[in-house]
Amino acid sequence: MGSLHEDTVESKLGFGLGLGLPLNPLDPEEFRRQGHMVIDFLADYYHNVGDYPVRSQVEPGYLHKRLPSFPPDHPEPIEDILRDVTADIVPGITHWQSPSYFAYFPSSGSTAGFLGEMLSTGFNVVGFNWMSSPAATELETIVMDWMGGMLQLPEPFLFSGGGGGVLQGTTCEAMLCTITAAREKALKTIGEDGIGRLVVYASDQTHCALEKAARIAGITNFRALPTRRSDEFALSPETLRGALSADVEAGLVPLYLCATVGTTSSTAVDPLAGLCHVAAEYGVWVHVDAAYAGSACICPELRHHIDGVEGAASFSMNAHKWFLTTLDCCCLWVKEPAALVGALSTAPEYLKNKATESRMVVDYKDWQIALSRRFRSLKLWMVIRSYGVANLRDFLRSHIEMAREFEGYVTTDPRFEVVVRRHFATVCFRLRPAGEVDPKEAADEKVNEVNRKLLEAVNATGRVYMTHAVVGGVYLLRFAVGATLTEEKHVAAAWVMVQEQAEALVGPIGKAGC
Amino acid sequence: MGSLHEDTVESKLGFGLGLGLPLNPLDPEEFRRQGHMVIDFLADYYHNVGDYPVRSQVEPGYLHKRLPSFPPDHPEPIEDILRDVTADIVPGITHWQSPSYFAYFPSSGSTAGFLGEMLSTGFNVVGFNWMSSPAATELETIVMDWMGGMLQLPEPFLFSGGGGGVLQGTTCEAMLCTITAAREKALKTIGEDGIGRLVVYASDQTHCALEKAARIAGITNFRALPTRRSDEFALSPETLRGALSADVEAGLVPLYLCATVGTTSSTAVDPLAGLCHVAAEYGVWVHVDAAYAGSACICPELRHHIDGVEGAASFSMNAHKWFLTTLDCCCLWVKEPAALVGALSTAPEYLKNKATESRMVVDYKDWQIALSRRFRSLKLWMVIRSYGVANLRDFLRSHIEMAREFEGYVTTDPRFEVVVRRHFATVCFRLRPAGEVDPKEAADEKVNEVNRKLLEAVNATGRVYMTHAVVGGVYLLRFAVGATLTEEKHVAAAWVMVQEQAEALVGPIGKAGC
Repeated sequence: MGSLHEDTVESKLGFGLGLGLPLNPLDPEEFRRQGHMVIDFLADYYHNVGDYPVRSQVEPGYLHKRLPSFPPDHPEPIEDILRDVTADIVPGITHWQSPSYFAYFPSSGSTAGFLGEMLSTGFNVVGFNWMSSPAATELETIVMDWMGGMLQLPEPFLFSGGGGGVLQGTTCEAMLCTITAAREKALKTIGEDGIGRLVVYASDQTHCALEKAARIAGITNFRALPTRRSDEFALSPETLRGALSADVEAGLVPLYLCATVGTTSSTAVDPLAGLCHVAAEYGVWVHVDAAYAGSACICPELRHHIDGVEGAASFSMNAHKWFLTTLDCCCLWVKEPAALVGALSTAPEYLKNKATESRMVVDYKDWQIALSRRFRSLKLWMVIRSYGVANLRDFLRSHIEMAREFEGYVTTDPRFEVVVRRHFATVCFRLRPAGEVDPKEAADEKVNEVNRKLLEAVNATGRVYMTHAVVGGVYLLRFAVGATLTEEKHVAAAWVMVQEQAEALVGPIGKAGC
Repeated sequence: MGSLHEDTVESKLGFGLGLGLPLNPLDPEEFRRQGHMVIDFLADYYHNVGDYPVRSQVEPGYLHKRLPSFPPDHPEPIEDILRDVTADIVPGITHWQSPSYFAYFPSSGSTAGFLGEMLSTGFNVVGFNWMSSPAATELETIVMDWMGGMLQLPEPFLFSGGGGGVLQGTTCEAMLCTITAAREKALKTIGEDGIGRLVVYASDQTHCALEKAARIAGITNFRALPTRRSDEFALSPETLRGALSADVEAGLVPLYLCATVGTTSSTAVDPLAGLCHVAAEYGVWVHVDAAYAGSACICPELRHHIDGVEGAASFSMNAHKWFLTTLDCCCLWVKEPAALVGALSTAPEYLKNKATESRMVVDYKDWQIALSRRFRSLKLWMVIRSYGVANLRDFLRSHIEMAREFEGYVTTDPRFEVVVRRHFATVCFRLRPAGEVDPKEAADEKVNEVNRKLLEAVNATGRVYMTHAVVGGVYLLRFAVGATLTEEKHVAAAWVMVQEQAEALVGPIGKAGC
């Protein structure tokens, strides 16, 4: 203090204040000063995010041209770094928080979710077992029971009913953990060398993460069972039965089925009750992947989509998709925690402690792939408390209502059609073939090509972003409402944009289809 | 606005401002207000963190008694939530950021790391492929080359040399990804049904995450090769050669070796050059786990610990341990990205895009387990820029210097001994057996028991936290310097505390050993 260096960069950064004083990267007052700056930076970002091109417009390699190839030897002030974030990083971001973001599925942020993440990062505890930070484990068990209750999950999935929930990073991890649990149980019966006979089942609409998880777990027999447009791309229990029966006949061992509530391509809903019934006959572990649609199922009028979950062994949904917690926050519940622990536990000497030995605590390291884990439950807890269950339901309903409005726009323009029935807040639509719709023509490549061009034209404007899927050979545009800042006016503007681009491609509204 | 509800909780939270107006969980001004509150909350926490009991003193189930079993239907103000964080959460936290935290390995926080995490959470992009947010991918490739350069990794590990780096959550994930990559390569040669013949190697000091990762990947042959005190618990290349040769003779297929630089128990350093040389003869994938010690290797005088890394296939270190980035941030480099991509890639229709098809971009989803990924490189970038390479080196050196001081205290008290040579900033010590040290007695259970009691007594004070390990049958106390706020005075106070507790157990300093 008062040294010659008082006004240098070093002193502003809170270190180098005198000879012999080391760097203090957690100086509380410097933390406060810089923290407030970044809060203001982000509050301004949310003010302006609607003005940025939604999909980043940069070309591959853009950032390599702007940043140095070598790290700086000496400190740089936060002011410079934030200036570079604005100049170099923001243009390369696809703005998932833009009100005009309708691509993939949402990555749902909120003030409460952000604050929970701040507290988690600030405390920076590593909650691998109870002992390492009891609050991290206990809050997670409490909040997972809260959330399970909101979803009306059957009691056996809750801690209060002998099961339990855990926060994973993503659904991929939830799948890998449950496949591994199921595999270890099965190998105990059929022998370690039986891994090559195990089979994992899904539909051809199931997220690609499942096949990847099975492959990581060393299981090479994977059945992507066909779905049909007439079933709205849901997996039929009879199709499953046929596959199970054929595999058993061939000497294979059915292991695991992933049923999906709200598929990625078209938000199809697999019939849980029927699938679980068939799976039970074959002793198959059923996992329900409700990554996207699970959030909506806290609304009583939508809960029916997961009817039948009582027959499943595990259930997961991503609170970071459509439940305001920011990435990453995947909720996984299992009926039999011992199966997870049996497959994933470790007990090295250096982690031994009295609490674990008392068997009175949960050690979450044994419920997941990694040892280390962040204090993720803080953000889920803060979202639920800050908004309350009633408001959260209404908020989800508002997205569904906006999707319904968009669907209305689509159906009133004769050039367009809704390709599959909408269940949640995602509308699957396309420019339809001209004239009578002949099922043979439904997947016509020329029609697909026009729709591909339409999507590219819409996204190239930068004023809106949506993505595509192909189901049953049909290329469709997905309009997924769920970004936190989206309001009706953004949905209406997006439709105007779609119409404008369609007009350039296939002519004015009087003309039907393409 | 101006409605009857103006002063209700709802209006303070930024929603419910009038009939028909929905919840706005990302209202920028409310984000700003609450964000500033939490910054102040955390700045105050860092001011006070040294006053809290380091290891949480709560009993199992404490939080269930304090929190309601059901979620609130209606919103609660941030003021109430923060009050509950203080009253209910903070007492259940083990304060990894306390200056008197010397347990496990550090979980190293900093202002810059925190701000990077804030920006990542604020933008909340999902950077699974280049397209989904180009900046997230490109900044990661740039920063991983920066970091690799700081570690003087051989050019083939860098993007600039045909390899490349990726940020994983934890070392467990890095291990699982590289084992899976090695496995898929091997199975292409020996056939899919050969999985039961593959063998993974490590030392008996290797982190338990490796055996777990191998098991998740379906590999059941795991060799924890013995180490000796005379080798300072490093894995001997000759021991490795013996195991490889025996397995090959038995018809098995050596697959993967994990060598460790800085083991968890005693920070032992496996001799990379010798191990890689032997492994190469057998075509084994060598992964180097430098989770803890890797950070220190940016200091030229410590770089020799990873000499020989040029013979490895992959290398990882945890920037969240001792490099100020906060959890989670594991840096993984591979020489052959195609091996990762070959094992972990997915290409569903709904993720197809022109950038991927151009083959000019990295799609990181194919380098890791999960699809979704956070923008983690922001925090590593901000840490390096905010502090600069020279300061970062000095900061790490200051921890090593403090560990050296503690080691000095230990060696000048005849009741104590340093159990294994210190390489970095972790001191392994114990109350030594009284009289001449007889190697037979070294692992005496009575001596172990006294040290166990000493550790428990030290930690029960709440004024310091350290943990234990057992190596070669010897129970030792680990004193790991590395918490960001630790200064010399905290190290000195910790030693006084150890002496006080030792005196109660084995008598005053005049008495040698226990």
